[in-house]
Amino acid sequence: MQHVSDLVSLFQPKTVAVAGASRNPAKIGNIIVKNLITSGFTGRIYPVNPREQEVEGLSCYPDAAGLPQPPDVAVIAVPAAQAVAVADDCARAGAKHLVVVTAGFRETGTDGLRREKELVAVCRQHGVRLLGPNCVGLMDTHTPVNASFAGSFPAKGKIAFISQSGAFVLAILDWSFSIGLGFSRFVSLGNKADLSETDMIVEAAGDEQTKVILCYIEDIAEGRRFMDAAREVSRKKPIIILKSGTSSEGARAASSHTGALAGSDIAYSTCFKQCGVIRADTMAELFDLALSFAEQTIPGGERVAIITNSGGPGIVATDRVAKNGLKMARFNTQTIDGLRRSMPPESNIYNPVDVLGDARADRYGKALDLLVSDGNVDALLLLMCPAAVTEPLETARAVIATARRHPDKPLAAAFMGGPQLASGTELLKKEGVPVFTFPEAAIRSLNGLVEYGRIMAVPVSGEPLAYAGVERDAVREIITRVRKEGRPVLLGSEAANVANAYGIAAVPTLLATTLEETVKKAGRIGYPLVLKVASPKILHKTDVGGVIAGITDEDELRKGYGAVMNQVLAHFPHNVIYGVEIQKMMPAGNELIIGATRDIQFGHLIAFGLGGIYTNLLRDVSFRLAYGLTRGDVEQMIRETKAYTLVRGYRGQEAGDLAALVDTIGRVAVLVTDFPEIADLDINPVFLYAQGLAALDVKITISTE
Amino acid sequence: MQHVSDLVSLFQPKTVAVAGASRNPAKIGNIIVKNLITSGFTGRIYPVNPREQEVEGLSCYPDAAGLPQPPDVAVIAVPAAQAVAVADDCARAGAKHLVVVTAGFRETGTDGLRREKELVAVCRQHGVRLLGPNCVGLMDTHTPVNASFAGSFPAKGKIAFISQSGAFVLAILDWSFSIGLGFSRFVSLGNKADLSETDMIVEAAGDEQTKVILCYIEDIAEGRRFMDAAREVSRKKPIIILKSGTSSEGARAASSHTGALAGSDIAYSTCFKQCGVIRADTMAELFDLALSFAEQTIPGGERVAIITNSGGPGIVATDRVAKNGLKMARFNTQTIDGLRRSMPPESNIYNPVDVLGDARADRYGKALDLLVSDGNVDALLLLMCPAAVTEPLETARAVIATARRHPDKPLAAAFMGGPQLASGTELLKKEGVPVFTFPEAAIRSLNGLVEYGRIMAVPVSGEPLAYAGVERDAVREIITRVRKEGRPVLLGSEAANVANAYGIAAVPTLLATTLEETVKKAGRIGYPLVLKVASPKILHKTDVGGVIAGITDEDELRKGYGAVMNQVLAHFPHNVIYGVEIQKMMPAGNELIIGATRDIQFGHLIAFGLGGIYTNLLRDVSFRLAYGLTRGDVEQMIRETKAYTLVRGYRGQEAGDLAALVDTIGRVAVLVTDFPEIADLDINPVFLYAQGLAALDVKITISTE
Repeated sequence: MQHVSDLVSLFQPKTVAVAGASRNPAKIGNIIVKNLITSGFTGRIYPVNPREQEVEGLSCYPDAAGLPQPPDVAVIAVPAAQAVAVADDCARAGAKHLVVVTAGFRETGTDGLRREKELVAVCRQHGVRLLGPNCVGLMDTHTPVNASFAGSFPAKGKIAFISQSGAFVLAILDWSFSIGLGFSRFVSLGNKADLSETDMIVEAAGDEQTKVILCYIEDIAEGRRFMDAAREVSRKKPIIILKSGTSSEGARAASSHTGALAGSDIAYSTCFKQCGVIRADTMAELFDLALSFAEQTIPGGERVAIITNSGGPGIVATDRVAKNGLKMARFNTQTIDGLRRSMPPESNIYNPVDVLGDARADRYGKALDLLVSDGNVDALLLLMCPAAVTEPLETARAVIATARRHPDKPLAAAFMGGPQLASGTELLKKEGVPVFTFPEAAIRSLNGLVEYGRIMAVPVSGEPLAYAGVERDAVREIITRVRKEGRPVLLGSEAANVANAYGIAAVPTLLATTLEETVKKAGRIGYPLVLKVASPKILHKTDVGGVIAGITDEDELRKGYGAVMNQVLAHFPHNVIYGVEIQKMMPAGNELIIGATRDIQFGHLIAFGLGGIYTNLLRDVSFRLAYGLTRGDVEQMIRETKAYTLVRGYRGQEAGDLAALVDTIGRVAVLVTDFPEIADLDINPVFLYAQGLAALDVKITISTE
Repeated sequence: MQHVSDLVSLFQPKTVAVAGASRNPAKIGNIIVKNLITSGFTGRIYPVNPREQEVEGLSCYPDAAGLPQPPDVAVIAVPAAQAVAVADDCARAGAKHLVVVTAGFRETGTDGLRREKELVAVCRQHGVRLLGPNCVGLMDTHTPVNASFAGSFPAKGKIAFISQSGAFVLAILDWSFSIGLGFSRFVSLGNKADLSETDMIVEAAGDEQTKVILCYIEDIAEGRRFMDAAREVSRKKPIIILKSGTSSEGARAASSHTGALAGSDIAYSTCFKQCGVIRADTMAELFDLALSFAEQTIPGGERVAIITNSGGPGIVATDRVAKNGLKMARFNTQTIDGLRRSMPPESNIYNPVDVLGDARADRYGKALDLLVSDGNVDALLLLMCPAAVTEPLETARAVIATARRHPDKPLAAAFMGGPQLASGTELLKKEGVPVFTFPEAAIRSLNGLVEYGRIMAVPVSGEPLAYAGVERDAVREIITRVRKEGRPVLLGSEAANVANAYGIAAVPTLLATTLEETVKKAGRIGYPLVLKVASPKILHKTDVGGVIAGITDEDELRKGYGAVMNQVLAHFPHNVIYGVEIQKMMPAGNELIIGATRDIQFGHLIAFGLGGIYTNLLRDVSFRLAYGLTRGDVEQMIRETKAYTLVRGYRGQEAGDLAALVDTIGRVAVLVTDFPEIADLDINPVFLYAQGLAALDVKITISTE
């Protein structure tokens, strides 16, 4: 991981300069100085403005060069036209970091983009790091420092919120006061001209005050750098990301099955899965998850115990346990006996435990004690509805005491009500027990902890995939020739050769341009065989009568040749036909697809699933990014599919050769990594046998630029 | 629909008696009297208790017989042991309705169940309707009347909340004060010994003050009565239901594909879909949906316009539009021109419209005006993040004014923040504009309106399915014989005959018990043919070598007979083998499944989807309930599947005979409705051809009791 400890002084500066500091309270340059002062920042604040003597009681400097000492952070809040010059001034004065809140850069078009490039050039020249431009700034509650123009300063907490949208920083900050949520820091990324989410995630990973890293992002600029960092950080601290823009219609070219199956969002969700990032689906979920992570430990398992004072909420929570893939704990006999002794006879003493509507705090407390000590219980949820004798405050105290005594088991509460339960809800919040209004959010939140436990259990990275004896030069030669001919699509015979060069068992395929050559080459392959039209433009050959299987002798071959040519010419009178390809006829096997498609951010996505002509119909495909792919990843991606049921031997059939399948997927990943010019690769179908497999149809598209 | 106008006086009583009225403030019998008084109930309140003279300043009567007039409602809050006698007393005194809050009935076991039966018998005897027992009671804010022991009384509103869980009544009531939500009524169903969700839904449908009907239920007692009622009511008022218990492990017997595919929750979700009920997934969603329905009209389409003062939230909302199956509106040129003239040049004037962070109320207002007048816009969402110059209150006023001028277009707001936006949020709530914290809930809420618009567009019920010439007697005869033999499973030949009797094109199948009989009957069917073992116990015949297809002559038949018998005896040495079945070999077609399985609440579920040996693997199946099934329902259930893509002609194949498919599914529905003793029916595979279809393998299981 890149060393970024030099960013510590961005969040824990000793001196902050504010370029564009102003006496006018309507100006951002005034708000920032005020924010620095009121946040309790104990370092030095240097307002910089040639037209001011003094701002908010502090001496103002005409330029950065005149500052008494180089600032750790220079916040730049001058008009866009002056921003580059002022940045240069600050950098020359020895500023370590620039926070450019000024707008009017890349987001405004060509002139702005040029200005942004100049700004970055200034920073690079002086070895200065840049946050923004076009950002709200940053806040750290523990330093404390508020180097932003936000209208308020958050309560102290353990959540770092990193946002590509400045508006979300302002919105979440304001919202946090209504629900009493604390933060370790807020970072507004702005245009991400230099410092990005990756830098901020790595920095937050090193911050002692931060327990959970929350991000709102719209894109990731350096996909592989993000992956390297996230893989490592995610094993230290949870990273939860809301990634928007999922509906983007920037659809992939559907020139391959794999490309068509991988929507524009697949690369991101695959990246997150592969790197141990937890993805939130909504803003509400992002913060529901944060609530548990900020305060709770990671459970040892997925078995949840539920305590409720009424049946309905217990059922709702139980439903949710199953929907989230958690398990209802089955109590040991000691717990059952204890509950039987201490609860009224009408109570349900099995999970979910119903302490009944007349439960006061003591009864809740007894049940809690028993459940938390049960070795079959990994996490607890306490539900409360307001009834006449309900004691929210005392029950909250019992919950807190239990949580203190058993810090190893996460505990969440859903206090389902309003004013009647408020005293308890407030206390739980204050004492760091995650509390929700409804059971569903509470269970989702606990599920996040379990999900993270699973992430932690997987090593950061396994052995990288490598295969001896791959023939790189042979592939280079084929691709170079195809490029020279200006063709984007390899012929079937060429693609088969590329696959074979990487140890992928492509079925021998020969190209023939005349009937007599076809007959001659058929002799070399042997009957029975398959005859296919060879044309770079025809993608779905079967659909146009361009494929005849099961040809058993020369006579059938001659007839078939004529039939294929007639069909194809009828369908595509203007297409280039190279001739035909003949291929050894293979015994039938389970039809699978293995593919690769290139993503602009993250490199190649590898796909595996059900193959054959129904691939697009059934869409049973799992994905992984080739970058950093391990054998464990490949095994897991196979297990995620319905095709895996076939591989294991479905309904009495023999199991397929899993090792050969894993090997082939791995070789595809290495092939496309070695040759980034491969835009799309489809092997469809792959026939998987009890021993080995056969890649029947290999299609490869390369980028020609 | 059942006439239930006699329930009006349950919610609008003129006189309410409280049996078990008490002076002790800790007693429910005291709370109920107080609640009646403080709710502003203007009718007469009669406390009843032989041991009290006066309760809360009202004269107390020793028994109901002594009341000055028969009460419209008698609330019973006496101990369980006295409840039946007191109910009898009230009924004899002429009470129209009993609300029994007393617990200690069915929910406590055998004695309680007996007591509940006695209670119901008393009510039946006197023609009195019963709410409960074991319920919280009911509240109506417009009457107003609070005949419950809840700790407070809700604000007036348009939402009726009907709950099988009393705890949820108390929880939602208390919670409603924190978010400022109003209700027309709360109904706690309790044990549903008499009045059920169906009665309460029908009653709420007739209530002028109720605009949306919300239910929390755990089961539906009378499935078909609910369906009749919900079908009709859902076209008048939206019904939104949270149904819990979805994870119940009361799994169906997996003796058929259809049974295995239909989880325990499928019948409920199918019922809701078929009857126009909107199903909420979580408590939060239930109320998010209610918020829009309570105040907004139903949009004419699904095109949403979004106005935002920042990019990020706009992107999040746009994502959600696509995820919810809504569309982003494309503005007409007049709108675009108007926005171009009135917005700053940096604004985004396409959807989502970004009025920029410095937008004050007037700019929001102008954009709103333009969008709401655009004929391409069906619904609007306004997003606001807190920025320095944001005017939440004035913007809220602009929103309200727009909503008033254009009541035809639903409008929701997401004010993303806390204290800074509170003035606007409060005003919107007060004036009935649904306002949310985050965009996702707002879009889900608008989507509910669109979903309801689609429900309203479908007629309550189409022509019921009926087919001339079905041979009921022939089926009756077969089933009677099978039952007499004590067999639960029909032989293939019997099942084929049942199917044929209802005009389902089952492939002729003959049973033979010896080799020579097989050879003889094969002559009648003709070659090629399929040979299958005939045994009621072997369900997956293919897996055990019990099926040989493509037998072309007598020699192959004789060999095949031996092979099948050997295989089956090897696998199932102790099974009863009836012999073999021979069936005409059919040309291959798209493999589909049509099935039926009986649900305990709603009768038969009909299934359609991809068939063949991968049915369970791919699980591409849609369901409908046979009860009230129309041709339109059948067409829609076909369209919901991936199999439909095959039916229409996938990748160059000829389209299948859709009419024959619809006809066959309809005939299956009529067959199982005529013969409720059919527990499970599978036709798998059905081969669908360009003309007609063939039901290759019909399996029928009957209940033998």
